[in-house]
Amino acid sequence: MAVEHAYAMGLIGDGVLPSLTPAMQMAEARAHGLALVYRPLALDALGLTPDALPDMLDWAERLGFDALNITHPCKIAVIPLLDRLDETASAVGAVNTVRFTPEGRVGSNTDTTGFEHAMREGLPGARTERVVQVGAGGAGSAVADALLRLGARELSIIDVDAERATALADEVAARHGAHVASGTPAELPEHLAAADGVVQCTPIGMHQHPGLPFDPDLLRETHWVADIVYRPLDTALLAAARERGCRTLNGGRMAVGQAADTFRLVTGREPDIERMHQHFQGLIEDEGADHTTKERS
Amino acid sequence: MAVEHAYAMGLIGDGVLPSLTPAMQMAEARAHGLALVYRPLALDALGLTPDALPDMLDWAERLGFDALNITHPCKIAVIPLLDRLDETASAVGAVNTVRFTPEGRVGSNTDTTGFEHAMREGLPGARTERVVQVGAGGAGSAVADALLRLGARELSIIDVDAERATALADEVAARHGAHVASGTPAELPEHLAAADGVVQCTPIGMHQHPGLPFDPDLLRETHWVADIVYRPLDTALLAAARERGCRTLNGGRMAVGQAADTFRLVTGREPDIERMHQHFQGLIEDEGADHTTKERS
Repeated sequence: MAVEHAYAMGLIGDGVLPSLTPAMQMAEARAHGLALVYRPLALDALGLTPDALPDMLDWAERLGFDALNITHPCKIAVIPLLDRLDETASAVGAVNTVRFTPEGRVGSNTDTTGFEHAMREGLPGARTERVVQVGAGGAGSAVADALLRLGARELSIIDVDAERATALADEVAARHGAHVASGTPAELPEHLAAADGVVQCTPIGMHQHPGLPFDPDLLRETHWVADIVYRPLDTALLAAARERGCRTLNGGRMAVGQAADTFRLVTGREPDIERMHQHFQGLIEDEGADHTTKERS
Repeated sequence: MAVEHAYAMGLIGDGVLPSLTPAMQMAEARAHGLALVYRPLALDALGLTPDALPDMLDWAERLGFDALNITHPCKIAVIPLLDRLDETASAVGAVNTVRFTPEGRVGSNTDTTGFEHAMREGLPGARTERVVQVGAGGAGSAVADALLRLGARELSIIDVDAERATALADEVAARHGAHVASGTPAELPEHLAAADGVVQCTPIGMHQHPGLPFDPDLLRETHWVADIVYRPLDTALLAAARERGCRTLNGGRMAVGQAADTFRLVTGREPDIERMHQHFQGLIEDEGADHTTKERS
């Protein structure tokens, strides 16, 4: 007569109400015949600041949550509240998944494993020895770590903020004992010239930040181009890259990848990543339709 | 692409870890194709006291719970934390269900409606004009109110604690403008002599409190006998009543009735009460098997 365990999860961060992760997790759980509730816990909408993070974790644990996803601006602030980090989170120095287990609170980072899976699944066989990463902001650390795990031996991190680029390059280099260069957009041509591909990690290309993060004429058809933006899925950069014959990877697979890795960690079930990807694309297309309607009206 | 709303619920009270309500609610939701997580939130196990109730409600609401059941010792303490009570909860003066709605926190009492349904479904056609209620404790208020809604014109409340019996009788009488008598077990024979039936509301008969709450030789075959104890479902009193030809109602239908009424309030779906009852009986039988095994070993 036993009822299978039902899962309670949430996503803590600023501005997370539009996140597609709750819908992705709940739909995948449903496909597995599992009951799973996933709530966006938007600090801003709740009138809370990151100072509330200790209380939020305490109460989520007391009220029977199994796990939380953590996003900006709490991915580092959450670390002192945990009992241990798994190997990947420890390497990245940031946590996006907290599990409440009988052995305590365990932090993981599925942003970085999610991007790694996205590259393997979306750009199979792509050479990843020499990679340029444009953008050293929020997602930069997780992407850089993934690139090094994917075998990058020459990684260049480019940012309009030279200090931020250098800081991230030094941090990642120290963690992995790897050679990581840094530079500003003016130096992009020389870095790209020797690269197998480029990962776009800035907000440019999002609906709210339309435009191109760099001149697509710098691309050759031998480059692959990955964009972590997923609203819209097809950014101006990816369209320009395709026109130039480049293989491309949109931001959807990273978003799906992190959700799939979190699903596996929390439920112990193997997610069907293609099913999650198709569901995600449907959600984004629905949004796109709304977006177009709004722009027209 | 929309995923149907998934429900998060909990039960706040002392000693609620063995409650069958979580399993009942989750199984009924599953049968409706709904995702529903229901957590027992045991104050004692969490190291909390009823003083934590305001924080528990605030955080449950922030963390996206749809509703909470409330049990001993918080059914009255919760009232000042709510925005309004529905008519039934207002009449009973106790709340066992809190819904977090866009219009605020609404308190209901499905213990009393649950017992009312149990009587209608489990003892259809039984006369309920003259009823004796034995036990003026925790469940007494909800049962007494239900009996008055069921048409009792002469209700007698019997308790070993004469003051407690009188206090509940006066309280219920004042609320309903009804005649409610009170008495001690010594006066039970005269009250029973004129009664259509009797409701047993003390803990006597539970696994932890075996025995008979009163001498079953006081029963005639024209009496119906309802017991609110459901661990075990078949108490010594009910067995003795059956031997004397009485119609009987065990405590299962009240437990199921409150769960069904809460399910309807929270999800807006019509529960299948017979399905819930069968599931509940299966759960109790499984426990009974465990209990017997433990007693033997």
